Amino acid sequence: MMTDFTATKAMFHIPDGMIYLDGNSLGPLPKTAAARVAETVTQQWGEMLITGWNKAGWMAQPTLVGDRIAKLIGAETGHVMVGDTLSIKVYQALASALEMRPDRKIILSDSGNFPSDLYIAEGLIASLGRGHKLQVVAPEEIEAHITEEVAVTLITEVDYRSGRLHDMAKLTAKAHAMGAVTVWDLAHSAGAIDVNLAKAEADFAVGCSYKYLNGGPGAPGFIYVAPRHAEIARPALSGWLGHDAPFAFEQSYRAGSGIERMRVGTPPVLALGALEAALDVWDMTTMADIRACSVALTTQFIDAVEAHCPMLTLASPRDSNLRGSQVSFRFDNGYAAMQALIDRGVVGDFRAPDIMRFGFTPLYIDAADVDAAVSIIADVMTHRLWDKDTYKIRARVT
Amino acid sequence: MMTDFTATKAMFHIPDGMIYLDGNSLGPLPKTAAARVAETVTQQWGEMLITGWNKAGWMAQPTLVGDRIAKLIGAETGHVMVGDTLSIKVYQALASALEMRPDRKIILSDSGNFPSDLYIAEGLIASLGRGHKLQVVAPEEIEAHITEEVAVTLITEVDYRSGRLHDMAKLTAKAHAMGAVTVWDLAHSAGAIDVNLAKAEADFAVGCSYKYLNGGPGAPGFIYVAPRHAEIARPALSGWLGHDAPFAFEQSYRAGSGIERMRVGTPPVLALGALEAALDVWDMTTMADIRACSVALTTQFIDAVEAHCPMLTLASPRDSNLRGSQVSFRFDNGYAAMQALIDRGVVGDFRAPDIMRFGFTPLYIDAADVDAAVSIIADVMTHRLWDKDTYKIRARVT
Repeated sequence: MMTDFTATKAMFHIPDGMIYLDGNSLGPLPKTAAARVAETVTQQWGEMLITGWNKAGWMAQPTLVGDRIAKLIGAETGHVMVGDTLSIKVYQALASALEMRPDRKIILSDSGNFPSDLYIAEGLIASLGRGHKLQVVAPEEIEAHITEEVAVTLITEVDYRSGRLHDMAKLTAKAHAMGAVTVWDLAHSAGAIDVNLAKAEADFAVGCSYKYLNGGPGAPGFIYVAPRHAEIARPALSGWLGHDAPFAFEQSYRAGSGIERMRVGTPPVLALGALEAALDVWDMTTMADIRACSVALTTQFIDAVEAHCPMLTLASPRDSNLRGSQVSFRFDNGYAAMQALIDRGVVGDFRAPDIMRFGFTPLYIDAADVDAAVSIIADVMTHRLWDKDTYKIRARVT
Repeated sequence: MMTDFTATKAMFHIPDGMIYLDGNSLGPLPKTAAARVAETVTQQWGEMLITGWNKAGWMAQPTLVGDRIAKLIGAETGHVMVGDTLSIKVYQALASALEMRPDRKIILSDSGNFPSDLYIAEGLIASLGRGHKLQVVAPEEIEAHITEEVAVTLITEVDYRSGRLHDMAKLTAKAHAMGAVTVWDLAHSAGAIDVNLAKAEADFAVGCSYKYLNGGPGAPGFIYVAPRHAEIARPALSGWLGHDAPFAFEQSYRAGSGIERMRVGTPPVLALGALEAALDVWDMTTMADIRACSVALTTQFIDAVEAHCPMLTLASPRDSNLRGSQVSFRFDNGYAAMQALIDRGVVGDFRAPDIMRFGFTPLYIDAADVDAAVSIIADVMTHRLWDKDTYKIRARVT
């Protein structure tokens, strides 16, 4: 591996004494982001005011930041647009994709999908009122259910609970063989694994930037539209900034060129400042390096936890080829145990009913962190150091 | 008037030598916003990381900020939700409203509406594919066109170009008499005029927070749903944070209580920090005081410009009861003239084909500013001091 991960780690602010294994939920603060946001507020908003839209490049930002994300997900330059939230972008992609298969009624997803994707699909189906059906199957059965009845597959590549990884290329090929359109949710993929949308011939993809891309709380979503669909896709959310000439203030909508039409309203300038700064770290590495190192870290973690904590049951795939960049274990008292771990500085999170979830990224987690985390986890689990009343660590009874 | 506008003015950063008359497009920086955003980034994101959702109150913020905006628009507490963009909120409100009148097909709007509202309506109509029609009439004809055929009226209260003010109470009453549902866009109303949604019995309203509310570039939108509809309205954009139990991660959507269901995805935490700070200034005044003073300022401006600049034609209503908080003049060389004014420190903006637009808010503009601005405008206009090549001020030829 060529990447100097010591250098990338130095770019993040991690609070003293904390081993942060929750970057799959909210990435930590890149040190330069604070200055970049302050500059956006005081120098740009404060001094440029309305002229910031051009002078500070606010208007072009969603496209430029989209291009930087494109590089991390194997997307063609000029085909990723940043804005809104992941849920909004799911709606936009799904609505566009459905229109490409007007004679089909099934949206196929799996029970490992993040619920918001399913909720958004339900909402869209109810709005359309044309008898679409959301079919939700077990993750391992999704391939078999991609049939010629399916209009759109709506699949999150990496399961938010287990970290189980779908084979994007294989499922996309099957979808295309059956005439279905694919919408891939990259929430736990972008910045975590080496996605290659172009190679997989994905149709649409969406994601968020506050997890492995470290854009900050509430950082915007993004959408990818394959070049072959870019001039065809109709944005259901047809806002003025997706218009071909937004400042002509025409009375009727004319879709902008390609991915530009997937803009909706005013871009989130402060958040984009933070995200721009956060993306700088990716110039220091490659997704291939990240993936290789991430596999090493998650494998190390699984091996060590299993060696020291027999009470924890692995909920993630053991085969690293089938796993994203997180590791989950099942434990009945998982919520209380996780609170105790957090109190000891090992920050993961909990997902009902019994999932203790730990996220890894080589950008700021190294092998020594994994060792240190496992040592604390082993201590807490072995001695059952959680207090179910306070959710704090309790003193060890000797 | 009771408000000390000297004190409110001191709360804003206005660049030296600038008279900022474009707060109707982007409000200036409230001095406390920079510190608040910095705190959000370094103390909250940086130190609390994922726990910020609870510890720093990020999750509750959209509701709490919504309540603060509610006070400024005469809305009932607990019935305004902040998030997304204005265009997204237009979609959400319009989709919900349309479903309340399933047997009607007409969305009525006017040619003074902001184009994005019309575009969003067009997009929704195309998605639904059920033969809805967007009927766009002249602003002065809208009342006559509210008939029993109309499902929803989609009206921006204050015209973005002319500042012409619709009578919300009157049009809402007519709509209700005809059985139509109202969606009011408050983009140029919130913080500008004394809106009273509850009194007008408005059904839905939407707005943005980067204009008169000074939330910063890309600050979020908001949506109001009348209490009588709050438990009925179905959010077409049914994201996980609008779910009744988002962290139960259920497979099917169940709408949250009341306005909570109008949340979609993750809230824009950095932007909400800025907006929270910006809203503090409203504790120092009342909308009644703001409106009275705004009328005085716009009237002073119209009188003075007309006295000194006969080449400018008033494009805003002369009757202050029919006018929002901006004043527009028509001028053939409006674009070049406006650039020259900006170069001289009088910042307004231009809207095609010939509108020179000036926004006023007593929060940081006073009578002396109006005098100073008019003096510069008179000089530039009388001596035609614009350079059509450079768009800079040119030296006066003596």
